[in-house]
Amino acid sequence: MTADATPEAVAATLRAIRARTPLVHNITNLVVANSTANALLAIGASPAMVEGIEEVAKFAAIADALVVNLGTMSRARADAMKLAAEAAHEAGTPWVLDPVAVGAIGYRSTVAVGLLGARPQVVRGNASEIIALARLSSAPLDASAGPSPAGGRGVDSLAQAADALEAARRLARANGAAVVVSGAVDYATDGMRTIAIGNGHPMMPRVTGLGCTATAIIGACLAVEPDALAAASHGMVLVGLAGELAGERVAGPGSLQVGLLDALYALDDAVIMARARLAPAA
Amino acid sequence: MTADATPEAVAATLRAIRARTPLVHNITNLVVANSTANALLAIGASPAMVEGIEEVAKFAAIADALVVNLGTMSRARADAMKLAAEAAHEAGTPWVLDPVAVGAIGYRSTVAVGLLGARPQVVRGNASEIIALARLSSAPLDASAGPSPAGGRGVDSLAQAADALEAARRLARANGAAVVVSGAVDYATDGMRTIAIGNGHPMMPRVTGLGCTATAIIGACLAVEPDALAAASHGMVLVGLAGELAGERVAGPGSLQVGLLDALYALDDAVIMARARLAPAA
Amino acid sequence: MTADATPEAVAATLRAIRARTPLVHNITNLVVANSTANALLAIGASPAMVEGIEEVAKFAAIADALVVNLGTMSRARADAMKLAAEAAHEAGTPWVLDPVAVGAIGYRSTVAVGLLGARPQVVRGNASEIIALARLSSAPLDASAGPSPAGGRGVDSLAQAADALEAARRLARANGAAVVVSGAVDYATDGMRTIAIGNGHPMMPRVTGLGCTATAIIGACLAVEPDALAAASHGMVLVGLAGELAGERVAGPGSLQVGLLDALYALDDAVIMARARLAPAA
Repeated sequence: MTADATPEAVAATLRAIRARTPLVHNITNLVVANSTANALLAIGASPAMVEGIEEVAKFAAIADALVVNLGTMSRARADAMKLAAEAAHEAGTPWVLDPVAVGAIGYRSTVAVGLLGARPQVVRGNASEIIALARLSSAPLDASAGPSPAGGRGVDSLAQAADALEAARRLARANGAAVVVSGAVDYATDGMRTIAIGNGHPMMPRVTGLGCTATAIIGACLAVEPDALAAASHGMVLVGLAGELAGERVAGPGSLQVGLLDALYALDDAVIMARARLAPAA
Repeated sequence: MTADATPEAVAATLRAIRARTPLVHNITNLVVANSTANALLAIGASPAMVEGIEEVAKFAAIADALVVNLGTMSRARADAMKLAAEAAHEAGTPWVLDPVAVGAIGYRSTVAVGLLGARPQVVRGNASEIIALARLSSAPLDASAGPSPAGGRGVDSLAQAADALEAARRLARANGAAVVVSGAVDYATDGMRTIAIGNGHPMMPRVTGLGCTATAIIGACLAVEPDALAAASHGMVLVGLAGELAGERVAGPGSLQVGLLDALYALDDAVIMARARLAPAA
Repeated sequence: MTADATPEAVAATLRAIRARTPLVHNITNLVVANSTANALLAIGASPAMVEGIEEVAKFAAIADALVVNLGTMSRARADAMKLAAEAAHEAGTPWVLDPVAVGAIGYRSTVAVGLLGARPQVVRGNASEIIALARLSSAPLDASAGPSPAGGRGVDSLAQAADALEAARRLARANGAAVVVSGAVDYATDGMRTIAIGNGHPMMPRVTGLGCTATAIIGACLAVEPDALAAASHGMVLVGLAGELAGERVAGPGSLQVGLLDALYALDDAVIMARARLAPAA
């Protein structure tokens, strides 16, 4: 196991984000555009939401990282994502893919599988999404076969993160990417090494788009940490820890969405050293 | 009058939402995508914002309810709405129409009248919108006649809910739908029965999209309550009650938007039994 | 210097907004649609987010002011902005342009320069954006020359407001507009007169879209105050003051976004008279 699954390494990644203010290019969905931009600002990055096909390729090339999120899919957005992902790959901009609701609908499954060709450094989804994407990308001709047996109906997973771990490893190896499966415990794997992340709060699934927020924060980590598995796991710790600090103080999901941003802004070495929970997993 | 205009029935609808976590498909606008998704999560439903023409028909068919909101209109969105509404009608997915700003602009008036053909179970609007839609749908050739005499200029109504009640009854009978007119007092009618809902808070109109939030929550109610009039009135009580509980505690509309989500999450039988205000109206 | 750079004049503008509830038409971006609509409601205006090419021209003509924000650019949105701006100019609807990220990307630079032809009453941007727009509009053939020497990479400015003041004056004179450069101190100029605005809080740049919020509030001011320089500077004071009142009370940027809306709602003559900071600048 490498040394980067440690609280010290998470704290170092956060310090690097704040020191360098990386420009994070997001092609995201209309549900989370505000909340993910705010999360990136709160942690110290500089978000830009650029999605026009006239603009995305140039912008992805100058950005420090790219985040592609399939949340509200359309042909125009699919075209923009493809242009941006290919430009990022070409320019060496690291990028992360969030295959929202893949497996539930044939169209976005096709888009997601196509995007894997532009070699994301990280893929993050819930168990249903990762199981579906692993199945689809290993046997793309099944894309028309309808909903995944994993049971994804929409953005909420019906499967547990641990169930998806083998699929995540297969997806990671096949694509040379780090893959994160979000859940009560999150797993990040590059196909050989696996890290379990225990931070988080049970109320977090009641706020829309916190998975998308995690993906965006992973984008900021990728801009400063070249090891994709480290960047992916550090991002999950930072969001999970902010969510749990906020969750302990709030009465409901409205306040949690607000408090998570305050907590991201206030995160420091001391709280990370005391409370980050990440460790190698079997 | 049926027995469903009671606090007990509202509480039963809420319990059913939490027990079944219905998948609510939303085609909504960029202003309220985040806040309505959060409201649906807070109350216990599973929202999905799917609007691409490549995806909406299949998704509407598998969803437990569909919410169509005209807030930010475009040709692409109009096409998606038509596909989704027709697929919902075909598959037996109950759906609710929110004709935002109808009457103020000719284009979206045409779209709204067209959507009535796919037989929504519920239509919810403010007084200006309901008056305009009743007028337009009974005499569609007037659609080019410009702004409604009811005086809608945008999303804010210049008319009172009670003024629109006769229009609402006509619209309900002509379309076999339940129609809700939002206002200081809300009215829900199926053309024969009418229910008045007294919950709410005077600060609610100062938060954008709480009407859209009510429409989305009605969608969740429709997924578990087959009587459209009951679902419509229960949804209005749940949002109005959450708004009034939050409004009593907050200093301004920013906090009200957050507090309303916390209140939806915390609603329980006791508070509904003590404070739900709905009754048959003349 | 005119008398309108006074707290009394700011308070009078706010009272006029609350008395008349102006209809403010916004073509904005998916990041800030919710937060700018809420800011307009909080201050007492009536926002409408209308962006379809089928609707914008008619709506801009009946609105009391128009706000055009380049935040998430696309061909469809560029077409809608052009139609709306020209209709506003034709109908005498005052309008304000927010050239988000101009200079960082060639496409939106071309769009922004084109929109100047429809004669906005106000242009508001950060230093990088104003420097870039002044350069591009005086030598439009350079639009393909790539990123501005001012160093804008995205929405966050790398230059200081004072550095952009000469560019702002030139841009103002060339277009007969008031130009605002946002920063730690904001400047509003019509090319001859210049007003410095000292309200604000250091945490404000950590909330996404507060510049866009300022632009929207300037739109509301333009609806009631015919002097564009007065409207621009009053809008900056109102948002800056709300931000500083909120900033003094909150723990982080999530709470600041919420608290700013509460503060806009609560602003009154007394706090404006005591704390508005605007003055003629050299």
